[in-house]
Amino acid sequence: MDGFSFSTDVRIRFAETDAQGIAHHASFVVWLEVARVAYLERNAGGYRAIREHGIEALTTEVLVRYHRAAYFDETLTVWTRCTDLRGARFSYEYRIERAGELVVDGYTRHAMVDRETHRPTRVPSWLADAIATAEASDS
Amino acid sequence: MDGFSFSTDVRIRFAETDAQGIAHHASFVVWLEVARVAYLERNAGGYRAIREHGIEALTTEVLVRYHRAAYFDETLTVWTRCTDLRGARFSYEYRIERAGELVVDGYTRHAMVDRETHRPTRVPSWLADAIATAEASDS
Amino acid sequence: MDGFSFSTDVRIRFAETDAQGIAHHASFVVWLEVARVAYLERNAGGYRAIREHGIEALTTEVLVRYHRAAYFDETLTVWTRCTDLRGARFSYEYRIERAGELVVDGYTRHAMVDRETHRPTRVPSWLADAIATAEASDS
Amino acid sequence: MDGFSFSTDVRIRFAETDAQGIAHHASFVVWLEVARVAYLERNAGGYRAIREHGIEALTTEVLVRYHRAAYFDETLTVWTRCTDLRGARFSYEYRIERAGELVVDGYTRHAMVDRETHRPTRVPSWLADAIATAEASDS
Repeated sequence: MDGFSFSTDVRIRFAETDAQGIAHHASFVVWLEVARVAYLERNAGGYRAIREHGIEALTTEVLVRYHRAAYFDETLTVWTRCTDLRGARFSYEYRIERAGELVVDGYTRHAMVDRETHRPTRVPSWLADAIATAEASDS
Repeated sequence: MDGFSFSTDVRIRFAETDAQGIAHHASFVVWLEVARVAYLERNAGGYRAIREHGIEALTTEVLVRYHRAAYFDETLTVWTRCTDLRGARFSYEYRIERAGELVVDGYTRHAMVDRETHRPTRVPSWLADAIATAEASDS
Repeated sequence: MDGFSFSTDVRIRFAETDAQGIAHHASFVVWLEVARVAYLERNAGGYRAIREHGIEALTTEVLVRYHRAAYFDETLTVWTRCTDLRGARFSYEYRIERAGELVVDGYTRHAMVDRETHRPTRVPSWLADAIATAEASDS
Repeated sequence: MDGFSFSTDVRIRFAETDAQGIAHHASFVVWLEVARVAYLERNAGGYRAIREHGIEALTTEVLVRYHRAAYFDETLTVWTRCTDLRGARFSYEYRIERAGELVVDGYTRHAMVDRETHRPTRVPSWLADAIATAEASDS
């Protein structure tokens, strides 16, 4: 995928469908989080490791645009990139595809916070560097 | 709430929290749907009645901005209004408050579709009129 | 309901349905928890208060029997009683009805634990007494 | 695992945790379903194929016993076997492990039904045979 160096696959669970016979729209918000966790595992030692450093990421904004419905048992590919890292803030952009066809796109915004106080704290340089390296490798 | 004539309350369930100790961000997307269903029940005979007319609404876009964290067992008030109804398309705007304090705001966009084919279909005039009346009463 | 002194109502959300057109079976497990929280609010100052005492309840067993399907937007009544409180252990029994008709019954078992260590700890006597009083009043 | 010929892995999502810092107990009920779908894919052409035959399986009973807590990002192995297939009825037994340690065990019971009417219907012989073959291979 143009501009994306990372993707992870999600298989749609029956519990994630609704009475319209499609994947419920809130399920996609969960899959974006699954993709972020996989992205951090690949590029920065994992979200669990980040939390063990006493910090965690709050979600401050979610935008999802639904282009096509998705169905039980389909495999979706979640293309993910981290962008706009500055201070305590960073964003992700996503493009979810099914067999090369756009299903959903969107972004999320986040703030790094102290785990105890939930006060904003700069993304540590080791993590910022790891993400910069991961995103630079996309070309 | 200025510009909103309708609200419904949601009590945060334990299952809706996460290991950050707060309501998980995807839970809010579900609560917006709960608010739409309550809005249509008040103003248009209910979403179930709409589906019995052979139509239903797909969600085509969701934007949520998280201003403050919310916690288990808190009661949130979801202010809701329907906007931009034109042809098969319409939107909702939301403002979620806790004791008068802004927690989340955002919008959703929707397309009315035929229940069998999921093809777009105009919002029927009885429903458009009911929503126009509801929104006009807010002033 | 014979033998039950407490009930709370749950309205089935669209997000809780699945592609079979019915409420997903895991949704009921969440509603049992909603009922426990409501039960403790009525009878023991609330689950949040209990957690503020430094303890919380883990679920150690869940049994649910599904007698009838339930559907979007239906209101279910969750009859709930607390039983078999001994030491750190206690149980709940449930009967979920729709307009007097049995939909689901079941039970859950729990262990009271220290919030920090998650080690079992006796149910404090103020809480055991509150529950005993609540259950005795049912007759 | 003794007596089980099939297992599938589940990675615990952040959205599946709760404010106790552990995987929410209802999440396990969803994972049992994920395991059934994977079991049928391996052994019987998939649940989607079964639904395309005009039948589907309702869940009539769930029992889950929680032996240990599970945490964000852990990988759980869900051992699964199909048992007691007779007429329209069948069951599954489960044992969920983390690195060889028992986390949860339990069972679910099901009824095969017609997709349109939700009336019980015999498990078709091609499906019963596929399951009998799968379970016989476990030895």
